[in-house]
Amino acid sequence: MSKLDSRKPSIVTLTTDFGTDDVFVGVMKGVLLGIAPDARLVDLTHAVPPQAIRLGAFLLRLSVPYFPAGSIHVAVVDPGVGTDRRPVCVETSAGVFIGPDNGVLAPAAQEAGIVRVIDITNEDYWLPRVGSTFHGRDIFAPVAAHVAAGVPLDAIGQPGRDLTPCELPRARRETGRPESVLGKVIHCDRFGNLMTNVTADDLAAFSSRKLSVSIGGVEIHGLASSYTEAPEGALLALLNSWGLLEVALRDGSASSQLSVSPGSPIVVTVH
Amino acid sequence: MSKLDSRKPSIVTLTTDFGTDDVFVGVMKGVLLGIAPDARLVDLTHAVPPQAIRLGAFLLRLSVPYFPAGSIHVAVVDPGVGTDRRPVCVETSAGVFIGPDNGVLAPAAQEAGIVRVIDITNEDYWLPRVGSTFHGRDIFAPVAAHVAAGVPLDAIGQPGRDLTPCELPRARRETGRPESVLGKVIHCDRFGNLMTNVTADDLAAFSSRKLSVSIGGVEIHGLASSYTEAPEGALLALLNSWGLLEVALRDGSASSQLSVSPGSPIVVTVH
Amino acid sequence: MSKLDSRKPSIVTLTTDFGTDDVFVGVMKGVLLGIAPDARLVDLTHAVPPQAIRLGAFLLRLSVPYFPAGSIHVAVVDPGVGTDRRPVCVETSAGVFIGPDNGVLAPAAQEAGIVRVIDITNEDYWLPRVGSTFHGRDIFAPVAAHVAAGVPLDAIGQPGRDLTPCELPRARRETGRPESVLGKVIHCDRFGNLMTNVTADDLAAFSSRKLSVSIGGVEIHGLASSYTEAPEGALLALLNSWGLLEVALRDGSASSQLSVSPGSPIVVTVH
Repeated sequence: MSKLDSRKPSIVTLTTDFGTDDVFVGVMKGVLLGIAPDARLVDLTHAVPPQAIRLGAFLLRLSVPYFPAGSIHVAVVDPGVGTDRRPVCVETSAGVFIGPDNGVLAPAAQEAGIVRVIDITNEDYWLPRVGSTFHGRDIFAPVAAHVAAGVPLDAIGQPGRDLTPCELPRARRETGRPESVLGKVIHCDRFGNLMTNVTADDLAAFSSRKLSVSIGGVEIHGLASSYTEAPEGALLALLNSWGLLEVALRDGSASSQLSVSPGSPIVVTVH
Repeated sequence: MSKLDSRKPSIVTLTTDFGTDDVFVGVMKGVLLGIAPDARLVDLTHAVPPQAIRLGAFLLRLSVPYFPAGSIHVAVVDPGVGTDRRPVCVETSAGVFIGPDNGVLAPAAQEAGIVRVIDITNEDYWLPRVGSTFHGRDIFAPVAAHVAAGVPLDAIGQPGRDLTPCELPRARRETGRPESVLGKVIHCDRFGNLMTNVTADDLAAFSSRKLSVSIGGVEIHGLASSYTEAPEGALLALLNSWGLLEVALRDGSASSQLSVSPGSPIVVTVH
Repeated sequence: MSKLDSRKPSIVTLTTDFGTDDVFVGVMKGVLLGIAPDARLVDLTHAVPPQAIRLGAFLLRLSVPYFPAGSIHVAVVDPGVGTDRRPVCVETSAGVFIGPDNGVLAPAAQEAGIVRVIDITNEDYWLPRVGSTFHGRDIFAPVAAHVAAGVPLDAIGQPGRDLTPCELPRARRETGRPESVLGKVIHCDRFGNLMTNVTADDLAAFSSRKLSVSIGGVEIHGLASSYTEAPEGALLALLNSWGLLEVALRDGSASSQLSVSPGSPIVVTVH
């Protein structure tokens, strides 16, 4: 990896379900900086709902393309901590991924282009005492720090089998008349905007004016190009900056108004 | 700007209404560090209520004086994202302000002393693909990073018109008998302390013992000099460390006890 | 202290009850970086409940061992701000502790090994204007930054009396038949796991299979070695990675299921 040759301090991102009210994340940073004092630490999010591997995987995949090549991405959503689930280190074209092999790394790593999967087995790079409840602190943080500090991946462990996959649900195109795309709400953000798994590619063949979006018992005609295109208090649908179909309420919360939540269906019909 | 000549890494502060549960802020940091690997990133707050431009402006103005000259302050409270509202870069005596020209930057920039306003128009310093919903990532973060990395403001765009103002409401002095100062609650902090827009200057002419504060149907006599001056469970008023009149409850939450919230009136009477 | 001689940038950790919705923490960081531009700032937690000195002390003591020697730990849980409670700077074998002398520093500093206690009295290292409500900004942040930048502790003030103690409640062993250990819930984490003050040492003499744990009217037999050892939806007790007895619910929240909160009793009986 070119990063390891460079003199630039490594970026280490953290994605967990630990929250920030507890000291879990702060302690991981203490371990990281003790080993790699120059690492640049970036919190992606610590608000993945407890044990929500799939949402963690989704958010990580969205975010990784915005980080420079060579970044080290640590993701710890780890309900199986303390069992024999593998700790892994994945070399990709975009950087290194470190975490439990339970699916949380797979979508982002696959999209980035996997070069090799290393089983994290060399305990020399772990904390001296490893418990059974907090491998973020005892294994993943110190391994990430050693990689950031220049330890080659070969030293961390040995080549392992492919990653456990994590299929993020894709929208499905129905080719009846009228044609439609059936998707799901994936995530609701702080504004109450509903992000779905319907992609710009899913809709690329259609004129945005001829589409209507059905969600929570409501129908929205056409796609807007910005949040302000609807009148105040009105719903709108648009392709957001992640290339995903999103439903929003002008100056309000679509989630509250529609009583819709992650998992709810959305249907785009082509007129 | 002297900062641009120095070798010290730039400080870039972030003030948004994005929250920290989503990956918005983390992704902005990825973009920033990709361009300006040495920038020091500081979160001011990401808990500005959605689209609350005025409160974001108030918090930014409070905070900027505590950062070293030459800091770069990015504020993204941006309900008009994707419309033709201007992205601007403002050079001031205290540093550079970057964000939408909707008022969020104006109070802090004006207090710092505006040198010039630059319209952010040179797309060379934006991300290659700019969407219509997240200019924090696509425009403001990369422009701030390029400025942090030494790109002169002239290159970012061309001189533009004055900033859109954002008047933060000021307390009003009534010169009847008794004299009084009429203000408002601006912000309620985590402790339930009620920060108002009545300033130390507004009260400078009066002896603090001769003042009484009326808020939420309750009257508080005199100003305290610390939170512990009232008995446990009692209300007190004091001039806080921002030079603003604040109402607090000893070892409790004034906000809960008084059912008072931002916007509620406060009256200081001079006896 | 060896740290002061080294060229490595100092780590400064922050533990407060300020929350992160307000700008308190961001402003402290502005002050810190203005004085010590190379300091590495780490948030331990800002979610200590308002004025909960004892919980802040507990979380700080848990965390400090995971930071490199020479780190500077700032803790501001400070209900007495603006009174004559002492601001102190404590040199220990693990690093420097800075905050109010109200107990919040004592357990961590004592465990680290106190070398000397310095009263923070030299106003040259404070902000020019010190208010009565926010010494985190006006005194503790600038003093920590000066120490991080290499100012010797002698210059900060003069040697002071011992720290105000803060006894964290210890579990008690009852030597009847059957033998038992009586403890308390100390903290509930984001997962609803209940951390107690029963330590691995308290239980070291007993076989983990012969123990039963009584909490919230429920009895749990034996200690698990990981969260996944219980069937889904079942309670379990284990020694967690901090060496403390913890009660958890497999894939759920023990706190919600048991209606147990910090302060509630836990009894371990030896069969």
